[in-house]
Amino acid sequence: MQTAQPSSTIKTRSGFAARLRERSRLANSLACVGLDPDLRLFPTHLANLPRAEAIVRFNAAIVEATSDFVCAYKPNLGFYVAHGLAGIEALLETRRMIPADIPVILDCKVGDMAMTTTAYARGYFDEWDFDAITANPYQGEDSLQPFFDYADKGVLVLCKTSNAGSGDLQDVTFNAGGDDHTLYEHVAHRVTAWSDAYPADIGLVVGATYPEQLASVRQICPTQPILLPGVGAQGGALAASVQAGVDRDGEGLIVSSSRDVIYAGSGAGFAQHARDAVQRLRVDINAVRGT
Amino acid sequence: MQTAQPSSTIKTRSGFAARLRERSRLANSLACVGLDPDLRLFPTHLANLPRAEAIVRFNAAIVEATSDFVCAYKPNLGFYVAHGLAGIEALLETRRMIPADIPVILDCKVGDMAMTTTAYARGYFDEWDFDAITANPYQGEDSLQPFFDYADKGVLVLCKTSNAGSGDLQDVTFNAGGDDHTLYEHVAHRVTAWSDAYPADIGLVVGATYPEQLASVRQICPTQPILLPGVGAQGGALAASVQAGVDRDGEGLIVSSSRDVIYAGSGAGFAQHARDAVQRLRVDINAVRGT
Repeated sequence: MQTAQPSSTIKTRSGFAARLRERSRLANSLACVGLDPDLRLFPTHLANLPRAEAIVRFNAAIVEATSDFVCAYKPNLGFYVAHGLAGIEALLETRRMIPADIPVILDCKVGDMAMTTTAYARGYFDEWDFDAITANPYQGEDSLQPFFDYADKGVLVLCKTSNAGSGDLQDVTFNAGGDDHTLYEHVAHRVTAWSDAYPADIGLVVGATYPEQLASVRQICPTQPILLPGVGAQGGALAASVQAGVDRDGEGLIVSSSRDVIYAGSGAGFAQHARDAVQRLRVDINAVRGT
Repeated sequence: MQTAQPSSTIKTRSGFAARLRERSRLANSLACVGLDPDLRLFPTHLANLPRAEAIVRFNAAIVEATSDFVCAYKPNLGFYVAHGLAGIEALLETRRMIPADIPVILDCKVGDMAMTTTAYARGYFDEWDFDAITANPYQGEDSLQPFFDYADKGVLVLCKTSNAGSGDLQDVTFNAGGDDHTLYEHVAHRVTAWSDAYPADIGLVVGATYPEQLASVRQICPTQPILLPGVGAQGGALAASVQAGVDRDGEGLIVSSSRDVIYAGSGAGFAQHARDAVQRLRVDINAVRGT
């Protein structure tokens, strides 16, 4: 358990949450595009290129077509690891091609011993220049602290994830201080404490498939940014989750869609289809939050 | 929740656990060397080389000096990510240099939605050819299933980790079926069920800093392989953990040491010092299990 350091409670104005808010207002959007390359779904003229080139050209077209309408991009590390070293090269090239005012979240669900976490932070934050990462809380506070010490970065902690089996651990219910808590609520409480104690902007990941649980998490964490995957292809209810997930200003929510946007069309016009899909997503979200 | 498939309960004789046992007997060793490169601790003649070359040459010297005495090697992904693309190149070169009869565990503590896990499996198992990975159970069974479907691979699930703060989530205690369980015991119970239901060899990760908890986990999982980090530098009690962690045959435990072995010496003779250190570790372990 770490002691709160007074100095660290002052969040920098140039931190991840501030940059996200600024971008979100500029684009009037809470939509985030997940850049998850799957060569089997690429248009034919790209699928036949060498893998790194195919991924970079696909992502470049998607970014160019969608950047007006997004608050962030979120590449998931797994879809790059799948292609070995070529995939990692494509990930770094993808990060570099995204306009500087759009935050990029590496979805890597990382978590390890503090000494190893320091090494990951050096890689994901310093070497590869991502603005935020997703992190796994299973190993506890000290395992994530090296990430939390980065004042200009964001750390989005898995809380209630969108998959059907997320209850295996996350819904375990226990009594603490006379009240019943689920494990995911426990994580949300920990995130508020960490958020007060450390310089990084610490937020959460809650799946759009669980709007009621999201409402409970938002109550525990009124100001923390929440990444909301699981809309669209995963069947999450968009209106209910946006309603439950935005903060008091109708912001602070990153609504991430991957396959429904980037594979909205399959032919040569795939980028235009992606543009249309993310614009629809943005409009649907804004209708709920009234902007 | 997945239904057990009868066919999958037959573990292949060439699976990870079988290869580990075979290697363990041949070397009469439960010792595993963690290949965690830290350039600041490298001997001067290597530290000044380009990063990928420095790491590869360091690891090559360590592997050559220690391979007689180990049952496995365990590179931790974080220490390679720290060096960006050069680090990943060095990781793959390191994997290729390890003799074929020694299992290599990628310590990556991975876990994600099933579709993403499938992509990770393609990368870590198929592309990069690791024999086993460490995995994080926070997202539940369906999130790890694509790993579990690989009959010839091992999946070592985080249970009770060696860090001081591991109790944050892992020690949460709840009532299930009239009995009190900790979350890490819940994970151990899940691992026995998964182990019966899927073709991969599924084991656990328990830190050497918690020998009593290890004894409880070994009781729940009598036959599953257990990776035991945290001896040496992390202060884990070796004798107590080996006693508590081996299976009925005095096997099934992977005792992993990183810094205490690979940085045992700092000068030109670093590899010989590593050899001496892992040989001492092997002897100390064998004294406890009587081999």
